[in-house]
Amino acid sequence: MYVLYAAHMPDKVYECGLDAAIDVVGGKWKPMVLWALATCPRRFGALRRELPGVSEKVLTQQLRELERDGIVHRAVHEQVPPKVEYSLTPLGVTLERALAPLGEWGEQHLDHIVAVRGAG
Amino acid sequence: MYVLYAAHMPDKVYECGLDAAIDVVGGKWKPMVLWALATCPRRFGALRRELPGVSEKVLTQQLRELERDGIVHRAVHEQVPPKVEYSLTPLGVTLERALAPLGEWGEQHLDHIVAVRGAG
Repeated sequence: MYVLYAAHMPDKVYECGLDAAIDVVGGKWKPMVLWALATCPRRFGALRRELPGVSEKVLTQQLRELERDGIVHRAVHEQVPPKVEYSLTPLGVTLERALAPLGEWGEQHLDHIVAVRGAG
Repeated sequence: MYVLYAAHMPDKVYECGLDAAIDVVGGKWKPMVLWALATCPRRFGALRRELPGVSEKVLTQQLRELERDGIVHRAVHEQVPPKVEYSLTPLGVTLERALAPLGEWGEQHLDHIVAVRGAG
């Protein structure tokens, strides 16, 4: 295990690649944003309808963070009214693929997860 | 996308397997606990030394949740003083393997992640 200090962020220390990856994709909505955008680009409203329960404010914030991290691309098409579309960058595509096995694990063990958490 | 309601937990709704998996493994320390236990079983103190910065209280809580979720096994060996060891269950091994590609993605893109976050 190695420790990496980011010069500009003294509080930000990653112990390993997994720690860094989870920092990028962590939070309830980001993995699902990636999952939704993996099939095709989406406008904000369409994306929001795919993620039931997310507020406009939270989704905007998550998209901005993913854009800053180079995972999501925001394209503004000059037309009237302007059309804004979100899509995965090439880096975002690799992240979405790296998340796939975890998603499959969750699908396979969904009954178990619900059972242990329901009984807890 | 499907919506699953857990009967005993009306607030707990999983939109997909990935959502459920992240609920099990989410948080800063759980993936690293899995990573540490993947090589061999660990006593509490050894585990804590592998995770610099985690408090005793937080690590105890995370281990209890992982035990409840069937990911980690807590074995008490009857000796003086008693020896308590944590290890991955077979289910935990499958989860750790499903996380591996995400860890590899993080390793590969660590410089990028630090750069964009340092500059942000």
